[in-house]
Amino acid sequence: MADVALITSKLSVHSDFPKEGINFMDFLPILRDPFAFETLITHIMNHILTTTLHMTQKKKIDVVVGLDARGFLLGPIIALRLGAAFVPVRKAGKLPGKTITVVYEKEYGDDSFAIQEGSVSPGDNVVVIDDLIATGGSAKAAGDLIKQAGGRTLEYIFVIGLAFLKGHDKLDAPSYWVIEADPSGSPVDKKDSNLLSAI
Amino acid sequence: MADVALITSKLSVHSDFPKEGINFMDFLPILRDPFAFETLITHIMNHILTTTLHMTQKKKIDVVVGLDARGFLLGPIIALRLGAAFVPVRKAGKLPGKTITVVYEKEYGDDSFAIQEGSVSPGDNVVVIDDLIATGGSAKAAGDLIKQAGGRTLEYIFVIGLAFLKGHDKLDAPSYWVIEADPSGSPVDKKDSNLLSAI
Repeated sequence: MADVALITSKLSVHSDFPKEGINFMDFLPILRDPFAFETLITHIMNHILTTTLHMTQKKKIDVVVGLDARGFLLGPIIALRLGAAFVPVRKAGKLPGKTITVVYEKEYGDDSFAIQEGSVSPGDNVVVIDDLIATGGSAKAAGDLIKQAGGRTLEYIFVIGLAFLKGHDKLDAPSYWVIEADPSGSPVDKKDSNLLSAI
Repeated sequence: MADVALITSKLSVHSDFPKEGINFMDFLPILRDPFAFETLITHIMNHILTTTLHMTQKKKIDVVVGLDARGFLLGPIIALRLGAAFVPVRKAGKLPGKTITVVYEKEYGDDSFAIQEGSVSPGDNVVVIDDLIATGGSAKAAGDLIKQAGGRTLEYIFVIGLAFLKGHDKLDAPSYWVIEADPSGSPVDKKDSNLLSAI
């Protein structure tokens, strides 16, 4: 699809960042090009309105959850366009007031994530948004917080999916990514969805 | 103004957060109410289109800079609506590729902030956006980065201004805030702009 080709053309890959052996996929150049940025947002909106919305009986998304910090760059735009609430997930201690927290196991040591109490209500339909899914730990933490609050995660949505890391297998709802990338940071032809087949 | 009254009604104040003696003003409840959120964005857009834009000859804003992390919740929406680039300022080490950095003096020790090289070009007209101005240290760091890159900051825009801390006096361009608050976290009647006089 031509829209995905445009978005993909703006990505940059940085070797050995943030540490040796990692090829970091940077989506920030998309945000510096208003046409590419609008193309990305419209692609995600089109996916939500044609697919995600129809996963629920009431045809309504109540909450968009964005992960600190790059998920904050996309989530509020999507929430405003859907007429949904935007709710941030942040590391524990960063949010004021009463919070719900979960501990998230990382390769070296643990980390805690939190949402504000009352920001997701029982029965809410929720989508989770972030720039990239790798091992899926922080997305899983967000899903656990939503479940604890009584919400239902419909889908996890990412700009970039590193499917070879199988992070999506940890999650309690389907995942969607606009661009799939291999370990070198190159786009992968997604045979199952045909998304990149026209590039 | 009725729009400011609606936005103000959604703020919450948390005593002794993040540490004793601080009354933390939380703007996140605005983002949970799509009407209040759209009211806030429209208020800021109206300010930019009637005032900020006319501070420059070419009547164009090239870049919206948002401060990590709460500035990320507003900046991309404003950038998209203006057809401008969105550029994040983050703590040094968080952004991939070549960066420009400045050291920012804090009460206890120093901190470094960075932008990606090439994200602001010489001659660019820039606005800086964050949720709140307190002592103004991080806004000043952003302004210094923009100046180093050759850009011109037209204005610093905030949802909440703690004018009594005089942070805006440190900055190299005018500041604008939607709501002015006193040390207790209560809205102040801004005599000079009349913004809150109708509440």
